[in-house]
Amino acid sequence: MENFQFNSNTQIFFGKGQISNLPNEIKKYGKKVLLVYGGGSIKKIGLYDTVINLLKDFEIHELNGVKPNPKIESVREGVKLCREHSIEVVLAVGGGSVIDCAKIISAATFCKEDAWDMIKKSIKTETALPIITVLTLSATGSEYDAGAIIANKSENEKLGYESELIRPKTSILDPEYTFTVSAYQTAAGSVDIISHILEQYFVPYSPFLADKLCEAVLKTVIKYLPKAIENPKDYEARGQLMWASSIADNGILSLGSRITAFSCHGIEHELNGYYDTTHGVGLAIITIRWMRYILNEKANEEILKRFANYGINVWDIDSNLEKLEISKKSIDLTEKFFKSLGIPMSLTELGIGEEHFEEMASNSVKYGFLEYAFVPLDKNDVIKILKMCL
Amino acid sequence: MENFQFNSNTQIFFGKGQISNLPNEIKKYGKKVLLVYGGGSIKKIGLYDTVINLLKDFEIHELNGVKPNPKIESVREGVKLCREHSIEVVLAVGGGSVIDCAKIISAATFCKEDAWDMIKKSIKTETALPIITVLTLSATGSEYDAGAIIANKSENEKLGYESELIRPKTSILDPEYTFTVSAYQTAAGSVDIISHILEQYFVPYSPFLADKLCEAVLKTVIKYLPKAIENPKDYEARGQLMWASSIADNGILSLGSRITAFSCHGIEHELNGYYDTTHGVGLAIITIRWMRYILNEKANEEILKRFANYGINVWDIDSNLEKLEISKKSIDLTEKFFKSLGIPMSLTELGIGEEHFEEMASNSVKYGFLEYAFVPLDKNDVIKILKMCL
Repeated sequence: MENFQFNSNTQIFFGKGQISNLPNEIKKYGKKVLLVYGGGSIKKIGLYDTVINLLKDFEIHELNGVKPNPKIESVREGVKLCREHSIEVVLAVGGGSVIDCAKIISAATFCKEDAWDMIKKSIKTETALPIITVLTLSATGSEYDAGAIIANKSENEKLGYESELIRPKTSILDPEYTFTVSAYQTAAGSVDIISHILEQYFVPYSPFLADKLCEAVLKTVIKYLPKAIENPKDYEARGQLMWASSIADNGILSLGSRITAFSCHGIEHELNGYYDTTHGVGLAIITIRWMRYILNEKANEEILKRFANYGINVWDIDSNLEKLEISKKSIDLTEKFFKSLGIPMSLTELGIGEEHFEEMASNSVKYGFLEYAFVPLDKNDVIKILKMCL
Repeated sequence: MENFQFNSNTQIFFGKGQISNLPNEIKKYGKKVLLVYGGGSIKKIGLYDTVINLLKDFEIHELNGVKPNPKIESVREGVKLCREHSIEVVLAVGGGSVIDCAKIISAATFCKEDAWDMIKKSIKTETALPIITVLTLSATGSEYDAGAIIANKSENEKLGYESELIRPKTSILDPEYTFTVSAYQTAAGSVDIISHILEQYFVPYSPFLADKLCEAVLKTVIKYLPKAIENPKDYEARGQLMWASSIADNGILSLGSRITAFSCHGIEHELNGYYDTTHGVGLAIITIRWMRYILNEKANEEILKRFANYGINVWDIDSNLEKLEISKKSIDLTEKFFKSLGIPMSLTELGIGEEHFEEMASNSVKYGFLEYAFVPLDKNDVIKILKMCL
């Protein structure tokens, strides 16, 4: 096992009615709150009103309109509000984009440089506003981790930022808030969960325990995602997806593993630098091609073993078959599963051509550290994978 | 899924050489340290010297000789030292008994009543000294949870105490410190891990995700325990057991489950009130009989389903067999596994007769809440189970 350090100190409130804890949790940090949210969905489901009613005794300032693949412009607006109103707590009500935006706001408020420079130059946060989240989409796991990803359209980039200081102090996870999430977004969100786990599973080394924990969550998502799509108000299904999303990206599943790069995320983020694709949809398209690309005639025993484990333990493929056959079947089953969810499975379907593949490939290798991945990828490899996605 | 609250905010340092973080971690809380440890084992492996050398700049007071099934007398001695020397941090170097003793010392130092009264009357802790642990035995999970269990021989009792304030601030887990643990203690420790998971698995309700996480850790322990016994310096095996022990009892595996009682622990703790049995050995003996007792002719579909899941997913029993057959086989395989580890499988072998079964049964129902367990148990049930253990 590899050495590791771990501290997952977000206070989680999971389940129906847990929103009632919000005032007490915010009170710990202050009275002046920046409420960050996206479009109108939290108003449609009544959550906005619930929050406003609960926080009658607080001074609320609002940053709304945060978009998927959250934009640096929203961050800058939030930073301005925090400084102007001496905000004491940032409250994110929404999905991963809203939470990521809130995280960067909370750190950049104290940064002397512009928020984008802070991200791009990885300027270390010395202090940050406390963040509290109310989750409305099971996907990124941002509610339970210490990272955030922001897009900058003017530079065609989407970059990540990490700091223990931006880990949410408290996250409220009520599966009922995801009842109205569309089938498409539910599927895309769950592909993000699956991808987070696959990125931790296809690695140079992982302890057996980590593999088993990863497989446990993968099987859960594969079992409950179709149920949540079929019956959007299935609390059990929504609940299992929600908790799966939270533990899929905070590291707990793969402690002791040697993880060198998140290959598919590395490529997909570059796609998001140029296009507003839904993150999970981009991941579904890329993941299948990445799998087929690395399972080539040069695939060594270690790669075959990984795929075979995945096929046997996640997709219940007969372990008596040849490893290569199991491996190929495991990719076929993954693709079939994604297709069954109604996810478009090519970039062409999304209206994306190869115009920017060169730059995207360069940047993904650079920012995604893909040369050090489980199967190292250079620029040409990434271009080939992207072409397979057309 | 059931509602839950969760915050696992212990800073974990896992792996070789992580002890070097000790001075910095202690420094956060002060200079005056109570070092709590057991017999001579930490001296034999050189860990005592390492710690003392690292803490040259600190004022160290020592409480040694903490016994397995830690006694209230050790706690009282520790409390006295903490008060006399205005201790600022409690450092536990050892296994679960040492850590549990340190936890109660840290809380009882500020309690106006005697430490045993604090436990017995569940007097809420208002403050506690920060606790740092260095683990030397993979077993109880105390290094990563908020509970402690203490024995009082004069009252023939062993009782638990819970408080967020006694959750360790930092735990250092270096699998090398377990290289010299005997085969017997390694096996007993792992039975404790297994039992912690079974107590979370045989419950009135658990989400699929929780079941899968529990099965993941069970399979890991079953795979690596024989390896650790065969080759005590197998770092990989020791490492997986160590991390398994830490996550097996802090709740993360079963969040969203409805857990009503830890049946076998409830009975075993009473055994420890009268006898100094090794906790894990007592658990092995009781667990098998408890399983056979609840899998009787009255066992309903829910009980059969639990056992069948356990048999199929943990012991790889053919899922095409009848549920009852799978269930019985799962118990047989569990027993065979325990026996293969060289664990004595009856109370008679431990020199224990039925003299105290009446009181033990009464107390276990009372303190273990066994009337509310997955399969509710009254005093007579417990007596019958204990008699099966002879």
